[in-house]
Order: sequence, then C-alpha cells, then structure tokens
Amino acid sequence: MTSVRVGVLGATGVVGQEILSVLEQRRFPVGTLRALASARSAGRKVQFGGEQIPVEAAGPSAFHGLDYVLASAGANVTRELSDSIRKSGAILIDNSSAFRMRPDVPLVVPEVNPEALRDHKGIIANPNCVAIILTVAVAPIHRRVGIRRIVVSTYQSASGAGLAAMKELESQARHVLDGERPVPRALPHPIAFNVFSHNAAVEESGYNGEETKVMNETRKILGAPDLAITATCVRVPVLRAHSESVNLTLREPLSEQEARELLAKAPGIEVVDDRARNVFPMPSVASGGDAVYVGRIRADLSQPQGLGLDLFVCSDQLRKGAALNAVQIAETLVKG
Amino acid sequence: MTSVRVGVLGATGVVGQEILSVLEQRRFPVGTLRALASARSAGRKVQFGGEQIPVEAAGPSAFHGLDYVLASAGANVTRELSDSIRKSGAILIDNSSAFRMRPDVPLVVPEVNPEALRDHKGIIANPNCVAIILTVAVAPIHRRVGIRRIVVSTYQSASGAGLAAMKELESQARHVLDGERPVPRALPHPIAFNVFSHNAAVEESGYNGEETKVMNETRKILGAPDLAITATCVRVPVLRAHSESVNLTLREPLSEQEARELLAKAPGIEVVDDRARNVFPMPSVASGGDAVYVGRIRADLSQPQGLGLDLFVCSDQLRKGAALNAVQIAETLVKG
Repeated sequence: MTSVRVGVLGATGVVGQEILSVLEQRRFPVGTLRALASARSAGRKVQFGGEQIPVEAAGPSAFHGLDYVLASAGANVTRELSDSIRKSGAILIDNSSAFRMRPDVPLVVPEVNPEALRDHKGIIANPNCVAIILTVAVAPIHRRVGIRRIVVSTYQSASGAGLAAMKELESQARHVLDGERPVPRALPHPIAFNVFSHNAAVEESGYNGEETKVMNETRKILGAPDLAITATCVRVPVLRAHSESVNLTLREPLSEQEARELLAKAPGIEVVDDRARNVFPMPSVASGGDAVYVGRIRADLSQPQGLGLDLFVCSDQLRKGAALNAVQIAETLVKG
Repeated sequence: MTSVRVGVLGATGVVGQEILSVLEQRRFPVGTLRALASARSAGRKVQFGGEQIPVEAAGPSAFHGLDYVLASAGANVTRELSDSIRKSGAILIDNSSAFRMRPDVPLVVPEVNPEALRDHKGIIANPNCVAIILTVAVAPIHRRVGIRRIVVSTYQSASGAGLAAMKELESQARHVLDGERPVPRALPHPIAFNVFSHNAAVEESGYNGEETKVMNETRKILGAPDLAITATCVRVPVLRAHSESVNLTLREPLSEQEARELLAKAPGIEVVDDRARNVFPMPSVASGGDAVYVGRIRADLSQPQGLGLDLFVCSDQLRKGAALNAVQIAETLVKG
C-alpha cells in the first residue's frame, strides 16, 4: 500500500488522541504524521508509533503536503480551515457537525453506505456518534425489510462531552462519595450518580441539538429521507461508550430469529444476547473495543406480529462513534 | 381522624424504612406502630416518632390487633403470611408483586385510579415503581385523548434492588476510581460507571420480568386492557430515583401546549421543562421528594401532527414508586 501523509487536526483532544491510537492499531499506512491543534496546544507533544510528535498550530498554511486531514476540532474551527485544507489538496474527513447535512458532502459509515464516498468533493463528514452506532445496528434490518419508524432513547457517556467532562465525572464521584455537594463545571448539571437530558441547546422544535443530529443524520446515512424517527438523548454517569434503547417499526415482517441471524453476520456488529445468563451489551465491555454490540433482540409485543422489534445497542463512541469510523473512511479511500 | 394501628412488614428494608419516614412526615394518624420483619432481624430497633420500636418476627400470629399492614417483603413471604393477615382482620397493602395481577386485588395509584379501592377484599397491591411513575405522568393524557401505544425506556437506580445494591454502587465506585476491578455481588454486573439491562430474569417472550410487570401493571392501573406498550428496563449508576423516556401514540390529537397545561395541573406531577436553561427532570432533584417530575414535553415529529408526544419523567422510586404510594393508599382508605 502507498504510504500516506496524514494530518490529525485536534490531535490533543479526546477524539484526536483516539484517532492516533486507531491509526497505529490498524497499521494504517502512515508515511508522514502531523499533529495539528489550536495555537494554545502548539509545542506540546503527542505519542505516535513510538515517537514524540510535536503539535503544530493549525493555521491556514498548516496543511501543505498532506493527503488526508482527519479533523476533530469544533465545527467553527473546521469550517474556517476547510478552504485552506481543500487548497492544499488534502481530503478532509471531518468529525464535526460543520458539513454533515450539506447535500454535496457524503456522510459515511463504511459498513452502511461506503458507496457515498464515490462522489466526494474533498470533504467527507464523519457522523454523530449516536447516529453511527444506531445505523450500524439497524442498517441490515433496513436493507432486508425496510424500517418505517425508529424510537431511540440514549444513555450517553461523559466522554461525548470531551476530556474535561470525563475528568469531572471522576472527581465529582469522589466528592459525592465524600459527602460533598457536586459542583458542575464542564457539564451544566451534576453527572456523578445522576442522569440528565443531553446538554445540547434545545431548539424551537423542542428537540435538543443532539437529537436533531441523530434524526437527520440517520436518515441521510440510511438514504431514507422518509424514515420517521424520534430521539431522546440523555447523559449517564459512564466514562465511555454510549448505549441506545431502540424500538423499530418495520415495513415488512421480520421474526426475532431472522433479525438475530441477520445481525450476527452483519459487518461491525457483535451480537451479545444471552437471555439465560442475563448478559447483554454494556459500556463496561464495549469500552475500548471496535464493535457495535447488539442485544435484547426481541419481537415488540406492542406492534403487529413481525412488524416491531426492540434492541439494546452499545458501542465505544470515541472509537466506532468517532475515531475508528474516521479512520475506516480513510482506509476505504486509500484502498480506492 | 381515628388513630390507626399500623404494622410495617419488612420494616428494616430500604422501602420499609421509607414507609416509616413517610408515615411520620405526613402525620399519618398512627395509634400503634408495630415493626415486623424476618426472624433474622427480630430484636433490632427502628426509629419512629422519636421512639425506638423493637422489631418483631413476622410469624402467623404477629398481626393480631392491627388495622393495616403495609408490607414490603418478598412476594413469597407476603403470599405465605397473607392468610394470617386476613384472619387477623387487618387490611394488607402489599408492595410486592405477589397479588398485583390478581383480578380480585385492586392495583392502585391514588392519583390515577382511587375508585379501584372500593371493591377491595382485604388486599390492595402497590404497583411496580416504574409503573407508578409512568401512570401518574400519562394518566391525565390518557383520560383526555386516549393513549394507543407507549414505548418506554428506563434509567433505574440501584435502590430498586435494595440497600445492598446502593452500598455496592458506592463502594464499587470507590474501587473503580482507585483503579481496581469492580466485583459485583448484590447485582449481576458492575454498576459503577456502567449501565446494564435490568437484572430481572428474561422470560420466554424476550422481555425481562421487570418489563413484563411494567407493561401489565400499566394496563391494569389505567384500566386499558388494549393499551399497546413495550418497555426496556435498564439499570444506571444512580443511588435513588428512576427516570423514564416515554414515547406516546395518542388516539386523538393533543398539542404540546395542551399536554403541558394538562400535566401542570395534574395531581402528583411537577412540570420541569425549562428549554432555555436546559433544565429538565433529574434524579438528583427528584431524590427524597414526593413529586413525579415531567419534562421534555414535545410533539413527536415521527408521528402525524398532534398524535405523538415525547416525555422525560423522573421520580424517587422509594417514595412515590413505593413507600409514599402505599401510605397514600392507606390514607385514602382511612378517610373513607
């Protein structure tokens, strides 16, 4: 394989760090690696391939000579830098929400819609973490019988809000155990021993920004503009890995057993569905792994036989929900 | 009000303790209070009304002279003792699942179906905690427009599994923070910084026992045998108070605004729905309180206008989900 010149934008962040790990672990054919971040982080070092890579400030001239930029900075930062990246000739694989819903930008989960990569114009968007995990889990079912409607409620970990939120969960848990009052800083509400509606701003529709992303992006990834979907996004005191309770209304009948067989052989999915031992997908098992774990696969008794299905899904959203998916996109492009 | 002779069965358990608190706080007209528990706990003392009450072993002859027995023991224990309680002349208000689905036993949430108390034959069942919280939240909507279908996913605290599970969450959290591996004992899986499918045994249907209770009991309390409902019950690392993500399909249209007004004036409900400040129901606020908190009230965009509604609900399941509801049943009976 050709060796590839890769820039990681946001290299010091929690997803950026994970991108570096995934590139290493998957032996991505990195020729040159450049670590880019805000001016604030310039001069720091990151680990890659046993070397210390100095972090460079991500200005407009920082992308010269790169083939791919894997970006995990804020939407505004990436939007500002995207012209410079394009002019440098590098392909931008962006983990922010900046370009996801633009009609000329493919929004890609390689297990689900790799064909969308064909038409890219220099920018490929990496979807929202909940949408990635959800679409990997339901795409095999959607392709077989069609999904009419999804009701999804999430159990999202602190890491989705970044490193500061993870550290806050840990330090706050200690404070609460010591009988002190939790003081939220990185997150708007106490996260230790608590759950709360996702911290994204609530929009005119009554849905918050995270829910709107999940709903719109799921439709785009599945290529199903008419899919009915409602999402309720909730933070839980878990360090990493998101869980999702998923209820499906199908267009044509599919038995529980057919669904299980379909999911068991689908790419990227590991079925964990041991009813006798009460073992199902859990963040503690999913954390650090690559799979989307699917379990609690059962016929929904509230819908006509064969037309309703319940699932419980779990995956490390820093990996499959972010870094791994971005690297998989790059791998697909490199392989041509 | 007449003074009432009350026995609390399971007085040393987490719900029994809460029943004692609620009786005190609500100034229930207690004349005599007797604390009953297993022989193992006999001789211990419980606090009530500034006094130390000795715990008596709950044998067949223990109920003589009581007007009400508020029971929070296991289903088997209560089933065994129920004949003795009836023969003693006391009315049994039972928090276990032993009698809930028996056609001749009223299953009562006083805000929802107090009329069911009229026909009791000496036993009244206190519903499952998730079902109590759910029915308080949705009953006003059901009465106004009819609910066709409910999809509910829960975020259930450790206290639902008893005192040992609460202590396990605390000690396990310390272990995890100290870098040690969590060793589950009271619960089947690690609970600190993790979520897992509810520990009730999974049945032939694919639903676990907790989910089956929620589905059947909700139908019985609402008096809606044809209500379609699917539940996914999940444990989260919260000490007390359960949360529920609730999706409704309505029979007749109801706007978001009408729903909010209806809920705001309904008994037992406190609407917490501040979109601008992103403040919604949370266990940290619900814990120790009496209300069922309802928020995230919004029209479900995945259903025809006015026919779908999403809610997020939270309440202390040791109080409204168990002890408070039982005491409210007793109050309703005492008032006649």
